[in-house]
Amino acid sequence: MPKAERQIIERVRRLVQEGSPGRGALVTGIGDDCAILRPAAGDELLVTTDFSLEDMHFRRAWHPPESVGHRCLTRGLSDIAAMGGQPLAVFLSLALPSDLEQRWVDRFYTGLLQLAQKHGATLAGGDTAQSPTGILADIMVIGSVPRGKALLRSGARPGDRIYVTGKLGLGGSTVRRLYGGEQVRPTGTYFYPEPRITVGQNLRGIASAMIDISDGLSTDLSHIYDESNVGAVIYASAIPVAATATLDDALNGGDDYELLFTSSKRVPKKIAGVPITEIGHIVQRTGMWMQDDSGKTKRLKSGGWQHFSRS
Amino acid sequence: MPKAERQIIERVRRLVQEGSPGRGALVTGIGDDCAILRPAAGDELLVTTDFSLEDMHFRRAWHPPESVGHRCLTRGLSDIAAMGGQPLAVFLSLALPSDLEQRWVDRFYTGLLQLAQKHGATLAGGDTAQSPTGILADIMVIGSVPRGKALLRSGARPGDRIYVTGKLGLGGSTVRRLYGGEQVRPTGTYFYPEPRITVGQNLRGIASAMIDISDGLSTDLSHIYDESNVGAVIYASAIPVAATATLDDALNGGDDYELLFTSSKRVPKKIAGVPITEIGHIVQRTGMWMQDDSGKTKRLKSGGWQHFSRS
Repeated sequence: MPKAERQIIERVRRLVQEGSPGRGALVTGIGDDCAILRPAAGDELLVTTDFSLEDMHFRRAWHPPESVGHRCLTRGLSDIAAMGGQPLAVFLSLALPSDLEQRWVDRFYTGLLQLAQKHGATLAGGDTAQSPTGILADIMVIGSVPRGKALLRSGARPGDRIYVTGKLGLGGSTVRRLYGGEQVRPTGTYFYPEPRITVGQNLRGIASAMIDISDGLSTDLSHIYDESNVGAVIYASAIPVAATATLDDALNGGDDYELLFTSSKRVPKKIAGVPITEIGHIVQRTGMWMQDDSGKTKRLKSGGWQHFSRS
Repeated sequence: MPKAERQIIERVRRLVQEGSPGRGALVTGIGDDCAILRPAAGDELLVTTDFSLEDMHFRRAWHPPESVGHRCLTRGLSDIAAMGGQPLAVFLSLALPSDLEQRWVDRFYTGLLQLAQKHGATLAGGDTAQSPTGILADIMVIGSVPRGKALLRSGARPGDRIYVTGKLGLGGSTVRRLYGGEQVRPTGTYFYPEPRITVGQNLRGIASAMIDISDGLSTDLSHIYDESNVGAVIYASAIPVAATATLDDALNGGDDYELLFTSSKRVPKKIAGVPITEIGHIVQRTGMWMQDDSGKTKRLKSGGWQHFSRS
């Protein structure tokens, strides 16, 4: 059974103090009505929130607690990466069933705090509650970016090339294997995805528009062309599909946490050790098409992402 | 049935654009990976998050949707008030059961957005998801305060007087009536509590420590003496108990959203139209005591707040 709210807060407060050197931006963290941040002069702040709900975003039988904590934070950090930002502070609202063992909670925090520390973000507050049902987490990440330098979804222009980082489809293919009843060893990139913070920062001044791929390439590309009021053509054979995945996983699977961006400039083949692949170009006519090797195009629809619901 | 995620986001985006003039601090709101805030030079930022979970913090049978939205935001705004801050931006993570009627969602947003507008805060982002169970909301409010001026829980000193705004116990007494099966007309302060934003700002430079009363006077006073490393004596007959409430409701009921603060200065009897009552004083010895009219004291324990759980 998890400890009473006050004990949980004290425990987390200690974990945070032990684990993190604390960054300049955070004046007051856990333990008051609000956390207090002092942003650096000339910086803008980035704010994002993301749910991680049991049986929707993870399952206790499939995901070790450290992975749930890590992935919960990755969802937020990946949004900061997609703006070209630097994470500063993390806030976690966590509701737990009354019969959940404390060991699960400790391991969840371990996974979350290790990733936070790696990226220089401090857990600075949040809320705790008893859950009427499964484990409910909502992560909020605050980051910073030099004024006017954030990379938006709306900056793509006709003629820009379209790029992705890393490989796509591992999320989709792993989910298929889990649903198929396969025993999947809970290690590696699907269980511990690496948010592309450094790559995102290096793309400031290069990318014209950027988004992270959390709902699948087709859905996230549609957000860029929607917000930019342009169209997109992608090349089927250019998409970097992960080893165990299919093209459909890459297009419509979720949880890849790679970056999708457009640029009219020269883009390096590798940034901070991460391969960058050109997969298409932006056109004036709004919509989304896939082109095969013979040059034929067909309309592409956004596929969207499958939740882990029981239904 | 609620609309698909994308439609909900578009709908909220329109509601927000219609309803709010937008404040200077918000550069980019709903519709990108992150919202972008540009804090005023010399300001510090306040951040708070609070869950509102169905059957824990509210019940659909008891609370109209407008009240659930209003109270959800009040929880966050009241934390900003308790620091002496000004709300800037609101982020809402909202998970909805698939069979929830759209009308409920619209009315929830109406209640939330009306209160946001009243206090000059813009709904700037959040997350939506399908809920595996009841309605799950997590509100995050970002506020600002002039650098170094935030009112902390840790500033109480021996000899300071203890004060509260308004009247206490309405939350506790209303919950008792609801549990007792009474039909309670869903209007008034319990259903639409007013966060004490203006009072809080006016207490900068006057209060030495402050907190909002969300868990009951006894629990929230214990946070002040814990963080300040002092003790507190309160006078039983001085506590301003609401008309329908008992002293126990005032001490141990939740959801009052009044301010509790300490001060060594002259404190007005009324601030921004809200009565201020002196209820005790701070002592050196750590702990919490209640004093009766004859001067006898007895130890006071924190009572805590009762969730609306079914058990």
